[in-house]
Amino acid sequence: MKIRIGIAGYGNLGRGVECAVQHAPDMELVALLTRREPASIQTHTGTPVYHMSDAEKLKDQIDVMILCGGSANDLPKQTPALARYFNVIDSFDTHAKIPEHFSQVDAACKQAGTVGVISVGWDPGMFSLNRALAQAILPNGQDYTFWGKGVSQGHSDAVRRIEGVKDARQYTIPVESALERVRRGENPMLTTREKHTRECFVVAEEGADLAKIETAIKTMPNYFADYDTTVHFISEEEMQKNHSGIPHGGMVFRCGVTGWEQEHRHIIEYSLKLDSNPEFTSSVLTAYARAAYRLHQEGQTGCKTVLDIAPAYLHPADAEQLRATLL
Amino acid sequence: MKIRIGIAGYGNLGRGVECAVQHAPDMELVALLTRREPASIQTHTGTPVYHMSDAEKLKDQIDVMILCGGSANDLPKQTPALARYFNVIDSFDTHAKIPEHFSQVDAACKQAGTVGVISVGWDPGMFSLNRALAQAILPNGQDYTFWGKGVSQGHSDAVRRIEGVKDARQYTIPVESALERVRRGENPMLTTREKHTRECFVVAEEGADLAKIETAIKTMPNYFADYDTTVHFISEEEMQKNHSGIPHGGMVFRCGVTGWEQEHRHIIEYSLKLDSNPEFTSSVLTAYARAAYRLHQEGQTGCKTVLDIAPAYLHPADAEQLRATLL
Repeated sequence: MKIRIGIAGYGNLGRGVECAVQHAPDMELVALLTRREPASIQTHTGTPVYHMSDAEKLKDQIDVMILCGGSANDLPKQTPALARYFNVIDSFDTHAKIPEHFSQVDAACKQAGTVGVISVGWDPGMFSLNRALAQAILPNGQDYTFWGKGVSQGHSDAVRRIEGVKDARQYTIPVESALERVRRGENPMLTTREKHTRECFVVAEEGADLAKIETAIKTMPNYFADYDTTVHFISEEEMQKNHSGIPHGGMVFRCGVTGWEQEHRHIIEYSLKLDSNPEFTSSVLTAYARAAYRLHQEGQTGCKTVLDIAPAYLHPADAEQLRATLL
Repeated sequence: MKIRIGIAGYGNLGRGVECAVQHAPDMELVALLTRREPASIQTHTGTPVYHMSDAEKLKDQIDVMILCGGSANDLPKQTPALARYFNVIDSFDTHAKIPEHFSQVDAACKQAGTVGVISVGWDPGMFSLNRALAQAILPNGQDYTFWGKGVSQGHSDAVRRIEGVKDARQYTIPVESALERVRRGENPMLTTREKHTRECFVVAEEGADLAKIETAIKTMPNYFADYDTTVHFISEEEMQKNHSGIPHGGMVFRCGVTGWEQEHRHIIEYSLKLDSNPEFTSSVLTAYARAAYRLHQEGQTGCKTVLDIAPAYLHPADAEQLRATLL
């Protein structure tokens, strides 16, 4: 019997999960939930679409609901609400609010007897898992995280809100020389500016004041003021042709020492190069849906994160096969 | 109360664990077990030394015994034997015999009510864990493992057994161009020879036939015949000065695709650069000792591997703190 999956929300992430479930040997997609008019949505696989308010009716048809909404407005309400009927997975990524979200999902899951896994993806997610493992192995050391090269949706949106900007794409780029220093084991102290640069591609409205737009970008507090930023004005055609992808990635390092004189240096690096940020995140969500199902089958309930789940739960093969082939 | 650790075996690995335990905030080293004459061993920290046959007497004084013997002759017997009295951790690395070792340790642990964690280190160990996670996330893809640059003890020993060789050190070196092809996402088919080269530094006996030694190395089946091997004859002084370290490392890649047309490529890379292979392995063993202790406290018993243990168990901080700081 296959694990019966539901998807809540049909944006980039939801479409990615639809595709990932199709490629999983042990899963089937049963339903899509939406807050829009269900009839207005045609899924790629022809999966039936229901209104979010009908969730309860699907209670016995779905093992794991994968939430694909946004962290700002959707997930804080939807994840605990849907945890009343299903095991749930989300990619909640507002780092500062994770403890609060955790306790709300935990309460809902425990009351309903379901399993919730929150903040699944790559950061938070696989990067968090790697930070935890590497810190545990090398307690005397230093962490570094670099992001990119990739598109930051938040920064792209911030540029789009500037007067005179029609469209924009922002790339976060790690500074190669800083990366090299970390990889060489120098354990450098790096400022925000020394770690990443930002590159913006902007389509301006006709007649807009380009110099003013560029200044507005480069001096924007929090988003750009602390970085060296480059701004390129391009045509709509060029935007469409060269910047329609959503690549991303990054690296987590732990540089630590061992030995009585701390004389031996070790560098652990976990690195991701992703052609499609949402499709990779969807793939991580789908693997953790398998874990949530298995944990629930074992009788567990409550909220978990990637830190609480053993690797074997994510893999379709059984424990014996994994030991024989992967160890 | 600190986790009370014992070490069985005092070679490079045992010494590394002694140092790692000293740097762990929540552990104390209680005893060293040896098969040698206890009085002949002086530990770095002054930890008391007992004969292996006295293990049972230490039953109530030690929470986790970390086994630091060899996979060929020590661990297959010692790990199940010591699991009768303690939670145990080992670094058993004879890949083909892991299923058999697992079932013997599992039986001993279940009978005694203890937890055993086998095959802990980096390969098997962190590399296995990363293979499992990456395969689960990217089911459509290809795995690559490279080792080095680093000293292979097995290959060094093989060279030392050749007539006329006084001392030898063998480095395994990944082929840079093959690495680059994998990192670029080419998913190449690579032969053994295309992935790694081998470099040997040899101190010959006086009057030995150097050409004969070089041929004996380069044509040695299993160890060297399938590789491009370089042999350097050096003096004892040079060996001592430049080749006394035991560095190692390597990389595990998963190169996979997502999307309806499999049009998006993703590369996951986990990479280690280690100044001291035994001290890093010791650090991994020590982190998993913490996990074994906690699992046992929860009432679990039986044999586990790194695939069966959630990351949070390894880290000294509690779950709440980890969520707040690492996610």
